[in-house]
Amino acid sequence: MKIARFRDGRRTAYGVVDQDEIAEIRGSIFTRFRITDTRYKLADIKLLPPTDPLQMWCPGLNFDNHREFAGSVLGEDKTPGTECPEPWHKGRNALIGHDDYIVIPKDSSGDVHYEGELVAVISKVCHRVARKEAMRYVLGYSCGNDVSERTWQRDDWTFWRAKGADTFAPVGPWIETNVNPSDLDMVVRLNGQEVQRSHTSDMIHDFAGIISHISQNVTLYPGDLIFSGATGTTTAMKPRDMVEVDISGIGVLRNFVRAEE
Amino acid sequence: MKIARFRDGRRTAYGVVDQDEIAEIRGSIFTRFRITDTRYKLADIKLLPPTDPLQMWCPGLNFDNHREFAGSVLGEDKTPGTECPEPWHKGRNALIGHDDYIVIPKDSSGDVHYEGELVAVISKVCHRVARKEAMRYVLGYSCGNDVSERTWQRDDWTFWRAKGADTFAPVGPWIETNVNPSDLDMVVRLNGQEVQRSHTSDMIHDFAGIISHISQNVTLYPGDLIFSGATGTTTAMKPRDMVEVDISGIGVLRNFVRAEE
Repeated sequence: MKIARFRDGRRTAYGVVDQDEIAEIRGSIFTRFRITDTRYKLADIKLLPPTDPLQMWCPGLNFDNHREFAGSVLGEDKTPGTECPEPWHKGRNALIGHDDYIVIPKDSSGDVHYEGELVAVISKVCHRVARKEAMRYVLGYSCGNDVSERTWQRDDWTFWRAKGADTFAPVGPWIETNVNPSDLDMVVRLNGQEVQRSHTSDMIHDFAGIISHISQNVTLYPGDLIFSGATGTTTAMKPRDMVEVDISGIGVLRNFVRAEE
Repeated sequence: MKIARFRDGRRTAYGVVDQDEIAEIRGSIFTRFRITDTRYKLADIKLLPPTDPLQMWCPGLNFDNHREFAGSVLGEDKTPGTECPEPWHKGRNALIGHDDYIVIPKDSSGDVHYEGELVAVISKVCHRVARKEAMRYVLGYSCGNDVSERTWQRDDWTFWRAKGADTFAPVGPWIETNVNPSDLDMVVRLNGQEVQRSHTSDMIHDFAGIISHISQNVTLYPGDLIFSGATGTTTAMKPRDMVEVDISGIGVLRNFVRAEE
């Protein structure tokens, strides 16, 4: 099932996507809901980020083939290890939805890269959950783009703007509740051309491991978003580019790029 | 004026504190409100964290006399510079209010320290604000405790749990709208004994500088909380301790310490 958050005029609602339509629901996506007879054409509504999370989390370095690249950006001494997930906060202000613009800040070097990632959506309050129980706290999965300004990533003390500048966290288009998160192809296309490809079976820490680890000291709440981490080497996006994160069985998160002002 | 957020039974409201009473308000603390005739004894209600922020921010290193101590915790090579505020996210999950318990996690080394700080409360959407305009975006000030687990602070890649574990962000007891933020004494007492003292005139980056800097790439929202940074050398808190952050002209944020479970 594909659960989407959307806006119709000034009203925000959740619905279930069926082909090119969306059927509005009543109730909570995290507990119980029913599908109503109110239907919209997808073309007539605005898809929003799939939740309104308290926080968004990413692992430090979660694909072996991203290590050399991360080292070249951060310096070897500042590159995280892989013994544990090394979680960090993705800026909450940065969250945008499908078809929204990624804005390259005017004081950026312009070295702003895509990172296509799988995103798990937390369904229940989650505290000190064991690894083998952790997947019960996931509602489903969406596509995410961990947009990264490489100059700031290297020079700043934290990722507050390198990965947290406004618009640097596209997530969408919806939550798919029926996929196996360890068997998905993650593909990024820039202007239609494939530029990044990975498979979630290559995650060093799977979602059960990441969620269990975070929950030992931090309570996760319904709607919180957990990114998978990214793979390989990436390149810069430019104004007027179109970037797509395409994950098998979920859908395509599409965003456009523009310069600030 | 002292503006407090509080709970009366199951209802959450804002009010204005007058001696030992609180008068409920109608409207928004960020735009316009009026004081109603509904009054409570402070002793009869539960003070909550003064806002429900989208995010909480701290500067990397904002007092000269905290530098040597920070270096001893983090290692010299990982200690932030002071040319710019080097903002980082304090875990949103960690926010607690006056009189709430700071919980020492069971897998902590026990080296959990207070850091008494002044906290600015953002009043308006704030994006690319110049330094000289920045103070117009502050509603007032509260007391904060940037609770820090020193072992995790040294060993983890980020502060996600060292300064973001559940309960590690006490803020309160209310927002004082009428103080000069550059002329305040900040005192921490542990079980009644003074253990930390500083003055906000010693902040390397004042709030105007921190807020302007963050707002260049990150939009701040009404209710967002900005910590001042801390001073000097700190010590560990133990279960059954009482810790107070006392800031002249604002009030006293008091919390108790207990071990997890």
